[in-house]
Amino acid sequence: MRSQPPHAPPFNPPPPNEDPQGLPAGTDRPGKGGDAHRVFNFTAGPATLPLPVLEQIQREFLDYQGLGAGIIEISHRSREFMGLVEETTAALVALMNIPPDYRVLYTHGGGQMQFSLVALNLLGLKPAHKALYVETGSFAARAALEAGRLGYVRTVASSESTGYDRIPEMTPDLLDAEASYLHITTNNTAYGTRWQTFPDTGALPLVGDLTSEILSRKVDVSRFGLIYAGAQKNLAPPGLAVVIVRDDLIGHALPKTPLLLDLAELRKDNSLTNTLNTFAVYVMRLMLDWLKNEGGVEVIERRNEEKVGLVYAVLDEEGFYKAHAHPGHRSTQNVTFDLADGKLLRPFIDKALEEGLYGLAGHPQVGGIRASMYNAMPLQGAKALADFMREFRRKFG
Amino acid sequence: MRSQPPHAPPFNPPPPNEDPQGLPAGTDRPGKGGDAHRVFNFTAGPATLPLPVLEQIQREFLDYQGLGAGIIEISHRSREFMGLVEETTAALVALMNIPPDYRVLYTHGGGQMQFSLVALNLLGLKPAHKALYVETGSFAARAALEAGRLGYVRTVASSESTGYDRIPEMTPDLLDAEASYLHITTNNTAYGTRWQTFPDTGALPLVGDLTSEILSRKVDVSRFGLIYAGAQKNLAPPGLAVVIVRDDLIGHALPKTPLLLDLAELRKDNSLTNTLNTFAVYVMRLMLDWLKNEGGVEVIERRNEEKVGLVYAVLDEEGFYKAHAHPGHRSTQNVTFDLADGKLLRPFIDKALEEGLYGLAGHPQVGGIRASMYNAMPLQGAKALADFMREFRRKFG
Repeated sequence: MRSQPPHAPPFNPPPPNEDPQGLPAGTDRPGKGGDAHRVFNFTAGPATLPLPVLEQIQREFLDYQGLGAGIIEISHRSREFMGLVEETTAALVALMNIPPDYRVLYTHGGGQMQFSLVALNLLGLKPAHKALYVETGSFAARAALEAGRLGYVRTVASSESTGYDRIPEMTPDLLDAEASYLHITTNNTAYGTRWQTFPDTGALPLVGDLTSEILSRKVDVSRFGLIYAGAQKNLAPPGLAVVIVRDDLIGHALPKTPLLLDLAELRKDNSLTNTLNTFAVYVMRLMLDWLKNEGGVEVIERRNEEKVGLVYAVLDEEGFYKAHAHPGHRSTQNVTFDLADGKLLRPFIDKALEEGLYGLAGHPQVGGIRASMYNAMPLQGAKALADFMREFRRKFG
Repeated sequence: MRSQPPHAPPFNPPPPNEDPQGLPAGTDRPGKGGDAHRVFNFTAGPATLPLPVLEQIQREFLDYQGLGAGIIEISHRSREFMGLVEETTAALVALMNIPPDYRVLYTHGGGQMQFSLVALNLLGLKPAHKALYVETGSFAARAALEAGRLGYVRTVASSESTGYDRIPEMTPDLLDAEASYLHITTNNTAYGTRWQTFPDTGALPLVGDLTSEILSRKVDVSRFGLIYAGAQKNLAPPGLAVVIVRDDLIGHALPKTPLLLDLAELRKDNSLTNTLNTFAVYVMRLMLDWLKNEGGVEVIERRNEEKVGLVYAVLDEEGFYKAHAHPGHRSTQNVTFDLADGKLLRPFIDKALEEGLYGLAGHPQVGGIRASMYNAMPLQGAKALADFMREFRRKFG
């Protein structure tokens, strides 16, 4: 049995014997929200997708581009699908302004498989096989644990002692010339914190897990040696990850790296070493189109700030709610908080659901409340949540 | 760069600069087939799915079970999805008659990721870290290559010298008491052969890659220590695999096994160590229901035999077509053949498409023609193909 990553649950635990995502047994599902049949879905991922994207998938599900077969029924090596991969990459390059010396690769297994992939491919960059990790939450800790089984890991900074309520300070003296890379989790889904600015690591490659905030804000890709993101928040349904990696960092895999986790193989085969999650790539293509039509990353970044601003404003008003993340460290994707009176947690989740606000329970290992508002959450959803929070406080405060 | 697995292309190569799956540039797509907008899709996988399954997915895509959110938008830890996993497993156990000392686990990455998973988890069963492989095609060879990087591999039998046109003979003296397991690929997608009966390995665990024939015929699970299958043929869209493993074979992973490839971790977490490919599990659930409604594995096995029987009959009629697989070794899922006159290959593929028969090009590394007829291919599709083949021969023979 492997050891569990450390975590310090600072919240009221989720009510026992209940669906943590908010549906007590026997509850009628009201289906309020964006329209008559849709709730506002604050789940942390797999997460809500824009209605126009879902409707397009639905419309062409039996017959993709007049082919007489659905997108999930055609070969990953067909012209149609290989064209889709190229278009998806081009769209991502444009939206993120990815420099030409970076490769976009599609991999299996979500963010956590990339914990292994990063260590397997990058530890070998230097003879010491050493990597530096910053521990900002349970996923960051898990990433370090996984690398620690393959090489030598030093956790250079951690906010565990304060319940991961902030991003710890990174100073240049914490870096190490013998290390192969420094790993950060840029947004911490379970705790609602994010790096506002990224550390300057000089020649040491910076590796970023952007799973829960990719495309939610402008990121200077050239600051990173490697970026990875599980698809299931801002990109697509789960079972796919995207790796954006500087070309010179490819080709250093450890000897026993599994074939499908070897970046050199994936680059050689243009990510088609085996059968990709074709459906997720297809949805990602539609999501990138949608984002472009919305105005791109800068526009969505401002909208995300506005959305969480509405909820943080309620949290900061008085003592009924307790925001978890410190003001200078707050995420624009996941807002985490608790109720001062833990007995009100279940009623909060239940009443919210009655109002068509779904998926507000915190991470199962953490508890409390988490409202995830990725790009696809409309401003209207954030307003509905903020209004509900004030109303709930008025009734129960 | 890794070495490529050996393969002996026995077929005419696919026409250059064309979509191997059958769509020459500028071709109008006729959309004939099962109904006005659907072709008969013979692609090798991702493959055709039953229309009722596709229609159900389409119907409930925006609102799964009245939840107000689509199945791809809800948490893998929600009650709805965890229930779905349980139901899917129960349905598979019933259809395959899986004994109680076996676990059904869901993993990432399709069949090829399991090449690594098998070696990482089972080589350690014996101190020699040795495994036996039977080479019946390029995927079988790749599986052996992958294991060979982690331990000692002996290829005990191969049909490479005859272009993988048969299953080589396995005699008891080829087994080895020091080996941890014997690996076979029960159906060889690219070459159209299958094991008619499985070798008796005594106490040595038999490992079967059933990717391209799972649920297509009755299989005595208790003959195997471990069965795995990428989902993209008879189960679901790609990006998911199923592993059926005897309990006592879990817990022997090599020390540096990536977390998500460790069977003990997957068992402990009921396959939810991280975010599963939720969409694929959902489709798999519908596919298993569909198969049960069709009458189960015995009924589908007879139908599969009838389907390929129609096509093999044409192949055996005279010299215009050349069947690849020897009669006693033929697959009921993939029928592979060539045209005696290689110049007719492109016209065959093009004319077939005009008749609504899609995806007939052979594997890109193999060439020729491959007609994949998984469970979801209706008898009508096999008849249409056999009729077309006779008509094409009448015109061009």
